Amino acid sequence: MSNMRLIGPELPNVPWEERPAGCRDVVWRYSHNPILTRDAVPGVNSIFNSAVVPFGQGFAGVFRCDDTARVMQLHAGRSADGVHWDIEPQRIHFQCEDDEVGHFVYGYDPRVCWLEDRYYVTWCNGYHGPTIGVGYTHDFRTFRQLENAFLPYNRNGVLFPRRIGGNYAMLSRPSDTGHTPFGDIFYSESPDLIHWGRHRHVMSPTSGWQATKVGAGPTPIETPAGWLLIYHGVLTSCNGFTYSMGAALLDLDQPWKVIHRTRPYLLNPREYYECVGDTPNVAFPCAALVDPPTGRITIYYGGADTVTCLAFCQFDELECFIEENSL
Amino acid sequence: MSNMRLIGPELPNVPWEERPAGCRDVVWRYSHNPILTRDAVPGVNSIFNSAVVPFGQGFAGVFRCDDTARVMQLHAGRSADGVHWDIEPQRIHFQCEDDEVGHFVYGYDPRVCWLEDRYYVTWCNGYHGPTIGVGYTHDFRTFRQLENAFLPYNRNGVLFPRRIGGNYAMLSRPSDTGHTPFGDIFYSESPDLIHWGRHRHVMSPTSGWQATKVGAGPTPIETPAGWLLIYHGVLTSCNGFTYSMGAALLDLDQPWKVIHRTRPYLLNPREYYECVGDTPNVAFPCAALVDPPTGRITIYYGGADTVTCLAFCQFDELECFIEENSL
Amino acid sequence: MSNMRLIGPELPNVPWEERPAGCRDVVWRYSHNPILTRDAVPGVNSIFNSAVVPFGQGFAGVFRCDDTARVMQLHAGRSADGVHWDIEPQRIHFQCEDDEVGHFVYGYDPRVCWLEDRYYVTWCNGYHGPTIGVGYTHDFRTFRQLENAFLPYNRNGVLFPRRIGGNYAMLSRPSDTGHTPFGDIFYSESPDLIHWGRHRHVMSPTSGWQATKVGAGPTPIETPAGWLLIYHGVLTSCNGFTYSMGAALLDLDQPWKVIHRTRPYLLNPREYYECVGDTPNVAFPCAALVDPPTGRITIYYGGADTVTCLAFCQFDELECFIEENSL
Amino acid sequence: MSNMRLIGPELPNVPWEERPAGCRDVVWRYSHNPILTRDAVPGVNSIFNSAVVPFGQGFAGVFRCDDTARVMQLHAGRSADGVHWDIEPQRIHFQCEDDEVGHFVYGYDPRVCWLEDRYYVTWCNGYHGPTIGVGYTHDFRTFRQLENAFLPYNRNGVLFPRRIGGNYAMLSRPSDTGHTPFGDIFYSESPDLIHWGRHRHVMSPTSGWQATKVGAGPTPIETPAGWLLIYHGVLTSCNGFTYSMGAALLDLDQPWKVIHRTRPYLLNPREYYECVGDTPNVAFPCAALVDPPTGRITIYYGGADTVTCLAFCQFDELECFIEENSL
Amino acid sequence: MSNMRLIGPELPNVPWEERPAGCRDVVWRYSHNPILTRDAVPGVNSIFNSAVVPFGQGFAGVFRCDDTARVMQLHAGRSADGVHWDIEPQRIHFQCEDDEVGHFVYGYDPRVCWLEDRYYVTWCNGYHGPTIGVGYTHDFRTFRQLENAFLPYNRNGVLFPRRIGGNYAMLSRPSDTGHTPFGDIFYSESPDLIHWGRHRHVMSPTSGWQATKVGAGPTPIETPAGWLLIYHGVLTSCNGFTYSMGAALLDLDQPWKVIHRTRPYLLNPREYYECVGDTPNVAFPCAALVDPPTGRITIYYGGADTVTCLAFCQFDELECFIEENSL
Amino acid sequence: MSNMRLIGPELPNVPWEERPAGCRDVVWRYSHNPILTRDAVPGVNSIFNSAVVPFGQGFAGVFRCDDTARVMQLHAGRSADGVHWDIEPQRIHFQCEDDEVGHFVYGYDPRVCWLEDRYYVTWCNGYHGPTIGVGYTHDFRTFRQLENAFLPYNRNGVLFPRRIGGNYAMLSRPSDTGHTPFGDIFYSESPDLIHWGRHRHVMSPTSGWQATKVGAGPTPIETPAGWLLIYHGVLTSCNGFTYSMGAALLDLDQPWKVIHRTRPYLLNPREYYECVGDTPNVAFPCAALVDPPTGRITIYYGGADTVTCLAFCQFDELECFIEENSL
Repeated sequence: MSNMRLIGPELPNVPWEERPAGCRDVVWRYSHNPILTRDAVPGVNSIFNSAVVPFGQGFAGVFRCDDTARVMQLHAGRSADGVHWDIEPQRIHFQCEDDEVGHFVYGYDPRVCWLEDRYYVTWCNGYHGPTIGVGYTHDFRTFRQLENAFLPYNRNGVLFPRRIGGNYAMLSRPSDTGHTPFGDIFYSESPDLIHWGRHRHVMSPTSGWQATKVGAGPTPIETPAGWLLIYHGVLTSCNGFTYSMGAALLDLDQPWKVIHRTRPYLLNPREYYECVGDTPNVAFPCAALVDPPTGRITIYYGGADTVTCLAFCQFDELECFIEENSL
Repeated sequence: MSNMRLIGPELPNVPWEERPAGCRDVVWRYSHNPILTRDAVPGVNSIFNSAVVPFGQGFAGVFRCDDTARVMQLHAGRSADGVHWDIEPQRIHFQCEDDEVGHFVYGYDPRVCWLEDRYYVTWCNGYHGPTIGVGYTHDFRTFRQLENAFLPYNRNGVLFPRRIGGNYAMLSRPSDTGHTPFGDIFYSESPDLIHWGRHRHVMSPTSGWQATKVGAGPTPIETPAGWLLIYHGVLTSCNGFTYSMGAALLDLDQPWKVIHRTRPYLLNPREYYECVGDTPNVAFPCAALVDPPTGRITIYYGGADTVTCLAFCQFDELECFIEENSL
Repeated sequence: MSNMRLIGPELPNVPWEERPAGCRDVVWRYSHNPILTRDAVPGVNSIFNSAVVPFGQGFAGVFRCDDTARVMQLHAGRSADGVHWDIEPQRIHFQCEDDEVGHFVYGYDPRVCWLEDRYYVTWCNGYHGPTIGVGYTHDFRTFRQLENAFLPYNRNGVLFPRRIGGNYAMLSRPSDTGHTPFGDIFYSESPDLIHWGRHRHVMSPTSGWQATKVGAGPTPIETPAGWLLIYHGVLTSCNGFTYSMGAALLDLDQPWKVIHRTRPYLLNPREYYECVGDTPNVAFPCAALVDPPTGRITIYYGGADTVTCLAFCQFDELECFIEENSL
Repeated sequence: MSNMRLIGPELPNVPWEERPAGCRDVVWRYSHNPILTRDAVPGVNSIFNSAVVPFGQGFAGVFRCDDTARVMQLHAGRSADGVHWDIEPQRIHFQCEDDEVGHFVYGYDPRVCWLEDRYYVTWCNGYHGPTIGVGYTHDFRTFRQLENAFLPYNRNGVLFPRRIGGNYAMLSRPSDTGHTPFGDIFYSESPDLIHWGRHRHVMSPTSGWQATKVGAGPTPIETPAGWLLIYHGVLTSCNGFTYSMGAALLDLDQPWKVIHRTRPYLLNPREYYECVGDTPNVAFPCAALVDPPTGRITIYYGGADTVTCLAFCQFDELECFIEENSL
Repeated sequence: MSNMRLIGPELPNVPWEERPAGCRDVVWRYSHNPILTRDAVPGVNSIFNSAVVPFGQGFAGVFRCDDTARVMQLHAGRSADGVHWDIEPQRIHFQCEDDEVGHFVYGYDPRVCWLEDRYYVTWCNGYHGPTIGVGYTHDFRTFRQLENAFLPYNRNGVLFPRRIGGNYAMLSRPSDTGHTPFGDIFYSESPDLIHWGRHRHVMSPTSGWQATKVGAGPTPIETPAGWLLIYHGVLTSCNGFTYSMGAALLDLDQPWKVIHRTRPYLLNPREYYECVGDTPNVAFPCAALVDPPTGRITIYYGGADTVTCLAFCQFDELECFIEENSL
Repeated sequence: MSNMRLIGPELPNVPWEERPAGCRDVVWRYSHNPILTRDAVPGVNSIFNSAVVPFGQGFAGVFRCDDTARVMQLHAGRSADGVHWDIEPQRIHFQCEDDEVGHFVYGYDPRVCWLEDRYYVTWCNGYHGPTIGVGYTHDFRTFRQLENAFLPYNRNGVLFPRRIGGNYAMLSRPSDTGHTPFGDIFYSESPDLIHWGRHRHVMSPTSGWQATKVGAGPTPIETPAGWLLIYHGVLTSCNGFTYSMGAALLDLDQPWKVIHRTRPYLLNPREYYECVGDTPNVAFPCAALVDPPTGRITIYYGGADTVTCLAFCQFDELECFIEENSL
């Protein structure tokens, strides 16, 4: 495990709880889930699909907080332990040089990534349809917004935590204007985080839990075995979409090449806080904290598009599982 | 509050429970919800979307009771306190002069309105498609049925409790033959409760919780600030419709003119009895009792298209909220 | 034939062409169809679905003229012979007391009906969706607009040419907001042409050429055998809708009761001017002129939503055909 | 009750629990539902829609176990009491003479039927779409697969437990390639369980709980009153499909003739284990055990496409209910 | 060519016209197309998708004639030269032992096949949905109807002209209840033309002109290179379906094995009689006559679901084309 | 007119035909349309949506030629007069450094643009869905392919003929995976023709002929009044899409700002070669030649997705029309 790369300038211990006795799952839930209920912030409908990073002596994050008009917004938050959070009551107001780009319509499903010298935030940003907003912060108080990475319609834009082949790199999932019944993950490169190109196809939906669409989850984690990508997959039942969680290992230098990818899911909606809420049957990962010395990985995921939850795994077990259960 | 108009010939105290400590919501739920479970009447599948009025020393109402064939029906009920109810085991059999109009196909989502000298009932009535049935009763035992107000396809017909400009007035929501993915509220007038015209557009869906369609809820309440209209709005998630509750103030003389309308919802499905049931994620208001001296408003709403629930608010707080959170 | 009722104050001969030799059809086309091509009026995209009546020594009418933005509009026209027309280059600007009702959005598929003392026009009028606009003229120069007859969403509103049971009467076809894949004909009554009620179901789609929806065509013609209603029916092929023409006889006193209704169509799209154009495969009747002494009926119908055409029949043959080929 | 025919070579007592005090329902749930939770077998996502028969001194069955890739599979199981089960951790590998037929794609919703000298299994089998797989076993250890009964697309194939008119007989529900929004039950005959013909229509969806589609459930039970068919019906709400349970009596000699059929459902989803899970609001019967001496019937049904449940009824009461509540 | 098997008891010369000068197409049209216009039979809407065989000194056939109610029907016809036809004015009334099977709802897209000792007719037969009707005639005057071959929903059932492996054999295309947006060709066997089984998948849609669905056309022609199957493929444009014609060679003994299959189409809709009519852009083959001594093949196909057309090819050229342009 | 900028190194006279007498249209058709029929190239299904530029003493172009498998391909062509063309019988094989990008799946709807020192080609390129392919040629014999400009799903990528603000600039229309029922035009910039960013919204569909979607047509033409953009708009009738042609003037320095935009169309499908073919009712412009000294503009457009056509206009008249008929 000591080969896992340290991402971020500071590194507190990750939140952790051992696997329950008798549990055979590679990924297990936190026994006190959800860590953030929908009532955790006044005037907010729900807190979920949230992006957390180590920050200072503790943690910071960007949280999707739909307001009570059901407008999707991003709020900043701080935590000493990664479990108990102070969420800003006001949404993030990004500073932006261009008024047309910076004009807020909606923002959701953020990811946060320490990259070179700052924390970058990517999210689904409303600009004549959903596309990938890009911004950054140094302190989780002031946020600046750059140009949208892509043309609409796109969701689930996830930066790699370092340049690849000299360029910035991002995964994303082109979509349509609605509840998109399709979705592949693509890879794109940029010299400047403004202009993007050299787009490559990474992975398509297959069958079962990932039959309808797939999308990148947390910032990929660099490991000797490749980039560890935790992702979500969607199955369409006669009652709508079900979001589950899987993982893949991508080539370190050509991340659009998939080395392994889980045929089974790692975690699927089965607890009430995942099955009952604004969108039933959703487990949606947006962040993962890594503790290289121990190989611990703590996954932050949204439950039922309503609450924020934790799950845990050991990297060595996970890597082994991915390899042995690969498509 | 003393300006609020007294509707109905008799006025018992409305059911009431104070706002829980720590709760900041303008509308709060009854702690013993649901007041009517799906098992409350033998041979019935569910009791919800029910219309309650003061009656005699207590209360009376018309209740949507789907039978165990899932045929939508209306039942009458009586209550001393508005919370505990005796529901008639048999559906209402309306007396009607015209057999073709009176032929029962289905009836659902009733509203009851004291108007001039009797209790009028409006409901979604099956006549070659859903339209607005109109009937009345003096005693909640015998009910007479008039002509359907409109051509199909229509739902959520709600009478005003007095004539406006000399005419009877009704809100309704034209629809299609199925689960209608659109819906505006319109206003119509009638000299005789038989012929309707002078149709005016009142409000359209906008975004967020009220993005797909909106429909009038309880009988509008006359206040100095305008007609208080509690209404439902629908959001379409990838797993179907979510029904929440909002409010508007309409011009007293030209009720198709919206003075204020809540951007946020007042109450949305979040309790299990609202999220789990025949239709998950539904909070659907059909009646509101008012106590002018105290400004108390008690809202009756359906949970998950399965059970009947109560929520409470103070008119002065609600009015203030509507004005300060207007679209 | 002499029993056919004379509608309208004046009665020129109807345009007429004898049935071609060898033709066995009850309804036959004019050999010089279309009588109005899409180029007949400058700045207009198409002229079709037009309503013609006897007027003065000749004929007048209201024509659907989509402009080159494809906005649907109504234009007035005059003709000496019913075949060659002068169409006003400007759309009709209805005078209306209420600005909200009179505000023009779009207008299409007009019908014109001599009723008591004036020519009434009904059409599909845009008011927060399609509904039935009602207006009148004495001279086809000045037009006044009344209230819309019904709530949206409705199309194909057709007045009866006299009161029935003391009330004005209209057929219409409730619809949805788009290309409506369903549609029944309903009957409504009004004491004042403003308020409408006593809605009755008249006929539903069945199968074959009239499997998807049906809608009233020209003003019903009073005959001893009942009201002669020429109507359109729609079949949905794998390439969209096909509009054909049929006929029914309705009870004189209770016109919602269908006495006979053609199982086969009378005329279906088969000429190039019916099969090729803005909407392929459309034959859509909006007017019929009657010559009681001879029993001649001249039908005006739109071809391919692009041009205006004529077809002819003899009432006695048509009545016989309807009776012998009834559903 | 003694006229009920004994099906199967051995007959242990069926699992049983008396109707709860105060319950008036003809069919009542087991108080310890679900008898199999989704965690009951390692590496499995869910266990539901399972087919159970008396076997030896106890019971055996074939269970739908979706794996954690959400691939639908069949597992064998044994039980001493019909309530507590040992499920094979590996899916059934059918032996098949023809590789193309025997190639496993997916298998779900099994039924098991003692017929002449062995236990036949029918299921929804993936062969270029869903169709009806047919196999058999003598011991629930070794299973052989025959030809698929029908062309795709078909589901819910259910064998009769004896020949009818000299031929094998099966009910099935032709479908489409997806979540099929229609579905009638048909009857087919075969001289050899390979070739099927003489297809007859049995029943269509009607309205309410069985408005969208219907499908046969457990193996029909022969009674003096006819074949007792427990079946499922589907209603489409604005949030998807709801599966409930009803029953019919079919003619003994011409089983495509329906003698009686319940207008109300017998059991619908209302417990959390039926309303919350991989597919909310599903109660789906696949097996029924009968104890002729007592008339007890124990129904095995799936809850929320996730867990396995029991319900009970008395045949005499059920027969009476079907007759008195027939469509 | 002399190896091509003679099908049918008699063999007149096939209708023939040489390839036009300068034409490079493998299949070319008859210069006098259509040979049957929609007016060819009184009271008929259209004549197309027709099945022709050599008969006596001339030809006979079964024709799809939609009546003027647009009910799909089958008519018999005779011809001396295969080009000029006498069509029976009345539809075929099949004699059937079972009233339920023989009850006529609709019949369309017939194929005729000389098999052993008689002419078998298969067609799309309405029995609670579309399925494959089977009947036979000796004289094209009296027709008898057998059991439907399959459960609904199925179309394009095409018999092989001899037993294969001792069994009768049929191709068909399982479908849904509407305009089916999918469709594979399957193969089934029967010992008695009543019971069918051993279903095998033959071919799926691919891309381009055959991207949406494929269906068998004329009776397969036995050749040394395999069964020559002329089939239709469907492409979905933004304006609906386009039907084109291709060909395949199937293994003689295991006809579900495709040896070659054309990547390009052989003929697509481009003449007005194929592009304009009841269903624009349809060329749909239902019959092919073969002259083994010369290798001439004459294809009968429907144009625009309205008229009947001829096309010609030489078998040796066609075989060569199929092999060189195989998918 | 002399202010119109000369685009391209050489400048032959554009093809031209004067406006017909009596015609009042701003844009008029060539009397010998189509200039390329579907039979113009052997083995090709259709030639349309073609991009033409001045080249040498004549003209060259890239043509969409669907092959007879209906695979969409690009062919190069040369012409002396812009009307009569020699089309290469083989599709263009782009040379590409990256095999994954250069792998041909399909290519359609090309545009050609002289930019700095070469002819750039953009087209809809199949790479895991439709996106914008970019290539260039110096001689219309050898073509090189660059990276795809954008992520899928995108169509109608159109380069500006010079850098704007120092960057290359492109219009495009993000879409979905199918026949996209929506579509806005966006603007993007690139420093290197590889990486693209600074995406700006240009225009949305509105109503009428451009109600469903809009897409850029020919390379924008620089004029003193702004960039002249000829574009297509789509209306959805009950029988599918109709493509018409309009124009806009965009700000020279900030081309995402629309100065004027035609409310009416300039040309819509009305000739048979526009209304009948592989996709009925399509007029789709892909190129425009300009003769600055005379102000003549010659538009190349596809008819019915089948043939190639010409239309003409005078720039001064067109500019005037756009300004006077602006939305």
